[in-house]
Amino acid sequence: MNEFKQLSQQMRQAVNAEMKAVLHAAETPPDLYYGMMHYHMGWRDEQLQPADVNAGKQIRPVICLLTCQAAGGDWEQAVPAAAAIELLHNFSLIHDDIEDGSPTRRGRKTLWTIWGTEQAINAGDSMFALAHLALNRLVDRGVAAETAVHALRRFDETCVRLTQGQHADMDFERRDAVSVDEYLAMITGKTAVLLSLCTELGALIAGVDETAVHNYAQFGLNLGLAFQVIDDILGIWGDEALIGKSASTDILTKKKTLPILYGLSQNGTLRQLYEQENTDEAFVQQAIEVLNTTGAREYASERATFYSQTSLQHLEEAQPTGPAFTALNQLSAMLLKRDF
Amino acid sequence: MNEFKQLSQQMRQAVNAEMKAVLHAAETPPDLYYGMMHYHMGWRDEQLQPADVNAGKQIRPVICLLTCQAAGGDWEQAVPAAAAIELLHNFSLIHDDIEDGSPTRRGRKTLWTIWGTEQAINAGDSMFALAHLALNRLVDRGVAAETAVHALRRFDETCVRLTQGQHADMDFERRDAVSVDEYLAMITGKTAVLLSLCTELGALIAGVDETAVHNYAQFGLNLGLAFQVIDDILGIWGDEALIGKSASTDILTKKKTLPILYGLSQNGTLRQLYEQENTDEAFVQQAIEVLNTTGAREYASERATFYSQTSLQHLEEAQPTGPAFTALNQLSAMLLKRDF
Repeated sequence: MNEFKQLSQQMRQAVNAEMKAVLHAAETPPDLYYGMMHYHMGWRDEQLQPADVNAGKQIRPVICLLTCQAAGGDWEQAVPAAAAIELLHNFSLIHDDIEDGSPTRRGRKTLWTIWGTEQAINAGDSMFALAHLALNRLVDRGVAAETAVHALRRFDETCVRLTQGQHADMDFERRDAVSVDEYLAMITGKTAVLLSLCTELGALIAGVDETAVHNYAQFGLNLGLAFQVIDDILGIWGDEALIGKSASTDILTKKKTLPILYGLSQNGTLRQLYEQENTDEAFVQQAIEVLNTTGAREYASERATFYSQTSLQHLEEAQPTGPAFTALNQLSAMLLKRDF
Repeated sequence: MNEFKQLSQQMRQAVNAEMKAVLHAAETPPDLYYGMMHYHMGWRDEQLQPADVNAGKQIRPVICLLTCQAAGGDWEQAVPAAAAIELLHNFSLIHDDIEDGSPTRRGRKTLWTIWGTEQAINAGDSMFALAHLALNRLVDRGVAAETAVHALRRFDETCVRLTQGQHADMDFERRDAVSVDEYLAMITGKTAVLLSLCTELGALIAGVDETAVHNYAQFGLNLGLAFQVIDDILGIWGDEALIGKSASTDILTKKKTLPILYGLSQNGTLRQLYEQENTDEAFVQQAIEVLNTTGAREYASERATFYSQTSLQHLEEAQPTGPAFTALNQLSAMLLKRDF
């Protein structure tokens, strides 16, 4: 077993125990208030009976704890931060599913389809409050109050960025033209700042100096950007068997991803094509052909390489050590070394 | 001018300045992300042009600051807490309006009717995060980090109670039978815990001992309960000219308030009556007659008196002093001395 697998298994267990404590999962049966949240977390089924459903990869809390350890801290002290970030992420999923009208998530019905939009909005609000309470538990593990206040401030500044990203994402849906810069700002808010919070809080709790905290934060931020841009590339040119979804979906649904927005900014033919109401296989073929001639793939690949390199540069500058550093490198490689 | 009027005017100004700083109101024109929140606060109109609309009574932040002062503290130090509570209250209004489908608030269109449910959910989330950032500013006013962490914990524990109250309130809508105890638990969450947070944080920042903090918190809690029960009584037997709404509305809409729930628990005739689909003036008259015979008014009045007395008892035990104490008494009298 490599370092990442070994450490992440142990860390995930600690994070799940912490989240269960914060969400009162030991009270059985839970009332509907907590039950809805337990369902979302995969701990209960629709009838609020015990369940053990895939709760996603939980990459975020693991990165937080690995960073803490690699920065010379005691990762167990950072467990409240890791749990808070995972709860924050899950709160945002509950509200995103309502805002996007998504009927399913991780192969199960979304909260709002079972208990209605009104109660689902409220369940999201509850989980948002509980995520804060999770983070507040840092002081129970001996973290200094000054550090906890600072962590809470960065947590909520990140929440503001997340909601700005979500605001922009929904705004793009109703707009014709979106610039490449606007898109990069949006994915920074929707994806990258949360990964940046993971690494920043891990470093903060380890107690390294301001410069090192900054480097760890930039490692997370650029890792998030690289991951998202690679995802955009795979959404058009990826190997279907490898990525598990049809590579043409992003074009069929006219999703505004980086290569598309770059192509639209460069090429009138693509703009005309995208004004068509209906899309089909022929549309996809045409669009990919035009995209290839505009250099959209090269542009996106260049961005992905830049973010990847910047990310790893900052990690190196932070001077991490030990098996947790090895594990961070293994994880980065997994997230970034996808064939593009 | 009495003490309350004099102090509250000054305090409201400070709180509004603080909220404007947190919500970046100086940036003109605001982008739509902040603009939606500025509209909700009454600072901007629908076109995001400057406006100065009645922002409600802002009783909560004023009680917080008066308590801090009456407990021997410097109220200006507690301004971040007062601003945070008012922002928390406004976040909950944004989501409540969506959950209740309310088209107007304070005589203006609600956020979701102008910008859609999706963006309004997100705007509420943003204001929730910003309310936390407001509270975090306590440390910028010289409040100890330990106190700030404690205040933040109580803030989020209160948010959990608020969402539990809202959960129960929505749950009652779809249920036939609601007990008097369930109702009291619900209004504790929806109304009383927020007032309790106001007085608790004011006392905490003043730095009084644990017993005094407890007494101030109980003062606020019982004040909130008394206020809500009096409101329920006025909703049936109040003087229309005095309360500004038809006294029969609560019966016409079959609203489950304390006197009604007490009556339903005591009287089969009322239960039968309430099974009727349609309601009219005759229905209202009949219902009031039956309510009068069940002693529902006496029961509710007795509860209101109990909460009022308990509230003032705790205030006295906390041993407040000075003009802010006089102002707290004046405010309590205004809220409680309504003819029931």
